[in-house]
Parts: sequence; C-alpha cells; structure tokens
Amino acid sequence: MLQARLDGLRAMMTDQGLDAVALVPGNAFRYFLGPDMPFLERPTVVVIDRQGGSKAVIPAIERATWQKVKLDGDTSYWRDEDGYAGIFAAQRGQVNARRIGVESFRMRVAELNALQSMVPDAEIVPIHTQLWELRSCKDASEIDMIRRAVCASEEAIRSTLEEVRVGMSEMDVKAILQGHITSCSGIGITGELLVLAGDNSARPHGRSRMDYRIRKGDALLIDFAATCEGYCSDVTRTAFVGAMSDEQHRLYDTVLRANEIGRGLVRPGVSAHEVDDVVQSFLEASPFRDFIVHKTGHGLGLDVHELPHLMRGNHTPLAQGNVVTVEPGLYKPGEIGVRIEDVLAVTENDREELSTFTREPLVVG
Amino acid sequence: MLQARLDGLRAMMTDQGLDAVALVPGNAFRYFLGPDMPFLERPTVVVIDRQGGSKAVIPAIERATWQKVKLDGDTSYWRDEDGYAGIFAAQRGQVNARRIGVESFRMRVAELNALQSMVPDAEIVPIHTQLWELRSCKDASEIDMIRRAVCASEEAIRSTLEEVRVGMSEMDVKAILQGHITSCSGIGITGELLVLAGDNSARPHGRSRMDYRIRKGDALLIDFAATCEGYCSDVTRTAFVGAMSDEQHRLYDTVLRANEIGRGLVRPGVSAHEVDDVVQSFLEASPFRDFIVHKTGHGLGLDVHELPHLMRGNHTPLAQGNVVTVEPGLYKPGEIGVRIEDVLAVTENDREELSTFTREPLVVG
Repeated sequence: MLQARLDGLRAMMTDQGLDAVALVPGNAFRYFLGPDMPFLERPTVVVIDRQGGSKAVIPAIERATWQKVKLDGDTSYWRDEDGYAGIFAAQRGQVNARRIGVESFRMRVAELNALQSMVPDAEIVPIHTQLWELRSCKDASEIDMIRRAVCASEEAIRSTLEEVRVGMSEMDVKAILQGHITSCSGIGITGELLVLAGDNSARPHGRSRMDYRIRKGDALLIDFAATCEGYCSDVTRTAFVGAMSDEQHRLYDTVLRANEIGRGLVRPGVSAHEVDDVVQSFLEASPFRDFIVHKTGHGLGLDVHELPHLMRGNHTPLAQGNVVTVEPGLYKPGEIGVRIEDVLAVTENDREELSTFTREPLVVG
Repeated sequence: MLQARLDGLRAMMTDQGLDAVALVPGNAFRYFLGPDMPFLERPTVVVIDRQGGSKAVIPAIERATWQKVKLDGDTSYWRDEDGYAGIFAAQRGQVNARRIGVESFRMRVAELNALQSMVPDAEIVPIHTQLWELRSCKDASEIDMIRRAVCASEEAIRSTLEEVRVGMSEMDVKAILQGHITSCSGIGITGELLVLAGDNSARPHGRSRMDYRIRKGDALLIDFAATCEGYCSDVTRTAFVGAMSDEQHRLYDTVLRANEIGRGLVRPGVSAHEVDDVVQSFLEASPFRDFIVHKTGHGLGLDVHELPHLMRGNHTPLAQGNVVTVEPGLYKPGEIGVRIEDVLAVTENDREELSTFTREPLVVG
C-alpha cells in the first residue's frame, strides 16, 4: 500500500518537473512512509528522489521508529548533544536535486534552512496542493477508519446531549463529551472540542468557557474531530436548551435546508464549486444572508481539513473516494450560531452518508 | 501583563538589531498577544515593529477574535474566496523593516513566503531561541497554572494505576487515564498520552498498542502532559505489573537515584549543564550505561518543551521562575524502559517541587 503511494508521489514529481520531494513529520509523512513521528524541536527531513532513492536526516532518539520504514536510500542520525545543523550541512553533495518540492503548510523555517544547507542551490517549490491531491481519494480501509470515527462521534454527541442541563458551563459539557469520546476503545481526539453556548455559538472558532452558565433558550453548538488510527471525523450539531424561539426555528430550518441541499449534490462529477454555489445561493436568498461566514465544506482524512474544499471557484469535480463535510452555518454576532455538519464519501456512482445522527432540531436539558 | 511582555519583546529586538518580529498563531503568539488562534490552512501573520506599531494580516473568519487584541497598528483581513496571497502581497511597502525575526520552529514555508511578499528585501532572522528565552521565567500566575496541571496529572496517574489489570491493552489503560484527566474541570490534554508496557516501555516515543495485552512482570510507563489554561504538566511514572524482578529493581533504583540527584541540584545559579552532567555521570558509572538515551530534562510552560534544556553544554544558569522537568530514564531495547519525571520551579533561593507523587517502585494490577 505504501509502495503504491510512493509510486504516486514519484509520478507527481515527474509531472511537476521535480527531482525530489522533502517530507517532514506529519500526516503526509505518515501517509507515504508509515510512522507518526514527533514534530517538535528536532528537525527531521526525508528527501525522496524521483529515481527511487532517498536521503533521511533523523534524530537519533527516533532511530528505532525510522528503521522500520521500508525506503531505499541512506539515513544519517543526529544526536541532541551534537545539534542538527552540522549533520544537515554535512550532507551537502549527497542529494543531487535541482528542484525540490516541500510541504509549505507543514515544513517550518528551521527545516527549510536545514534542507537548504544540504542542497544550497536547489529551487524550493511549494507542493502542498499536489500532496493534498494525492491524498484526496481514499481507499476502502481509509473510509472505514473515518466511518468508525464518525460513528464514535455520533454516539458521544448523543450521550452528551442527554446529560446537558441548564447551569452547566461549556467546559462542564466539554468534559462530559471528552469522557464519552475517550471511553470508546481505539478512538482519539484531535484539535479542540468546540462546545459553544448562547452568544459564543456565533463564533465559528470560539472556545469553551468556564465562567458562562448555560441558560434556557441558548443554542448549544458541538463540533469536534474524533480519530480512528489517525483518520478524522468532523460532525457538528446545534441543539437548543430548554426551548426554541420562533426566530431560532427559522434560522435552524434555513441551515438545515442548506445542509440537505448540499448533501443532495454530492456525487462523482459534480464540482466542488457547484455544491458551495448552490448552498450559498440558497443562504444568500434567505432573510439571514448577513450571517453567512464560511464556505460549505472540506475534505477530511488524516487531517481534519483536506481537499477538496467545497468552495466557490474550486471547479475540481468530486471523485470516487473523496470524503467531504457539508457544513452550512449562520452566525448572528453576539447572539446565536447554527451549524449542521455531516460527513459524506463519494462512491462510484453516488454518495455514502457516513454521519446519520438526527438533524431534527433537538431541545435538550 | 501582555504590555510588559510586548515591552520585553521590543527590548529583545533592540538587543538583536531587529526592526520587527513576525508572529504566527501558536504559543508565542498567545504569550505576547493573548488569543489562541487556529494554525491550519489560513496564513495569519502579525509583524510587530520595534517602534510600537504593527501590521497584522488575519483571515476574515478570525476577525472577532483578533479585534479583542490590544495592539497599536493596522490590520488587513483576507477572505477564503479571495485567497491569502494577494492580500499579503498588497501590503508591500506597508512595513518598513530590513531585519525581521521569525519563529523558525513555528512559522511555515507558506507564511515565510507570504511575509517575504510583504517585505521582499528584508533579511529573515531565526529568533526562536530569543523568544523561548523571553518565555523561560514564569510569573506566579503561570506557575500556578502548571501546579494545577501537575496536580490533576498526579490524581489521574493515581486513579489509573489502581485500575490497571493483567490482560488489559495499553489502549485500555490509556482510555482510563484520559477519562480521569478529562473529568477534572478546566484540565485538558496536549500531545500523546504515553501508556507503554513491556518491551514498548523501552521506546521513549512509543505509542500505545491495542493488540498487546499487559502481562505480569511488565514495566508500565505512563507519561503525558495535562494542561490548565494552556500551561502544561509533564510527569512520568513507571510501575510494575504484578511483580518486580531483581533486575527491574536494580534498574529502577538507578533511575530513581538519578532523579533524586537531579532534583537536588535544581536551584538558582546552578547551570543546566551541571544538572545534566551530574545525572549523566551517575548513570554512566552504573551497570546500565548502555541504556542511556536522552538528557535529564527541559523547561515547560505553554509548550511541553521549553527552555532551559537540562543538557550538557547548556551553561545557562537556572533562574527564578524557570520551570523544569527532571526525567532520567534507562531503556533496554526490546525489554524494558524506566523513566521517573518530575516538575520543579526555581524559586528565589531554592526550588519548589510541583510534582510530589510517590517515586517508590509501585507494583500494580
């Protein structure tokens, strides 16, 4: 499986006129090479060339992990007491590459400088888009991991909503949610758990508060990514505490209709642009057009945000194996936000809805 | 408080001959500016100049968060549908700086390129060390957050060890541990929870397995960072399941003695080198010298790994407000690893031991 991925990587190099690609620890590294290595204070760079060779510079403390990787080529290890700069610079002349692709949304200035000390004359080419494209069509085993993460997420949302009560803080609810997620064997969490009530729900990237007590009439927005063997879910539901006002109903119904429209469009050959454009046009024609903040959705996999982006202007057709969110939302600043987010896989001729938790407006607490 | 930190940042610019510093979301950004903003696919750069001004380029979706920041200067927002490259490039001429410091272990190639499009002729200077130094002496409120995170960690370790049984997988124990941590109000987790049994304990960055069942006689190493308002704990204990062999006792006692020696050395004016050198010399003189893998410890704060590193060659004297780990370990490949990690704060004349969980060899299960 990894060999096929490396073959795809090398075919991309040929397409892009690259002599090599430099990977640093992260999800692309994991996708192409296997291990999930630390990405902290120890620069780690693997240069994979188009001809089938490689040159890796690895912290000595990671030797045992790296030795399990099946990759033709040469490895140099550096020890903490020696520092990394000298070992990288000592590789000068070992890599024969004039154009090297790098993960520009992952590689840091430190690794860039280390790489440039190995290959001072090489042109550095950002290839984050090409790497994302190689990862955008999932195989059955990847979709199965996402399905398991989504299933665990939905169970956690269900259990948590049953326990919400007026007077709890957002952090209280978050702790309950965390407990439900982590009690699932093999399921992890990545990124922040968003539990946002009342005015905080209007902030698409708000953080849970300790000092705000949930009140009757609040919207309660729950959004997080669970993981299964690194693969992510990303499901959002917005419930209401105690009661729903008529305006909340209208807002919710508008978002729900946008969600239904979006999900209904997902299938092979439809462009990402079209999904977003139809959803946004619907929201723009609603009385709530001033409360639109973001696009319709994004791909997901080992990362929570992957290709394809369901966004106007992205004319890429959806393809079998894409896994995407459909997550329209409306946000009235200082008052309320509603988002309903689902995960779908594009199948050979249609779609599979990986998330199935009810989208009916739920009154809880 | 943030103003004093910005003053310190600007004093550092003067020392280093910098005209400005560029920050991207992360813990330095949080430390100097306040908000904990996302660091995903949307480049976000704040250039703080030495004269008291700033130029921020912020994703429009983060406007509400950014508007709370008290910082003199100018902000440009970019929208997803427009992309970021044009807005950054349009700032050309807005920032008058010839030498700009960057966080080379945080800023990615994408932000570097965006920054360079704003200020194409500026020299880019890595200043990660200087930024770490500014963060290395904690004030009382920061130490209090770390103390609370450590306290929650120790309670979670205590509760978890009571529940460990022969036949559980490492993932089972990890789920129990997660549940105990997240049941503490206001306490989060950062990074991986390490629950490593048997041969896996010998891998300093091993990952918990689902398929290995804990056996009688296994070492069980637990290491993780809990957080309180972003501030981290980092405590490790190694227990034994069912029984301890004589060799395990000897290994454990050697690590424990190294830990005691290390802790005993922490006080203002002693160099980081000296702490590590005395600890390593002790381990090197033991029968287990071949099992040494890493240095004695590191600072911690908003990041799990901060300055000062307790490492040979680092002749920085410890100073009041430093918070450090002392974590000697010995690792016999394929068989057993033992690490005992504590957290200490350097006080005006002495040290405060923030972690106090028993270091006696524990037989559990």
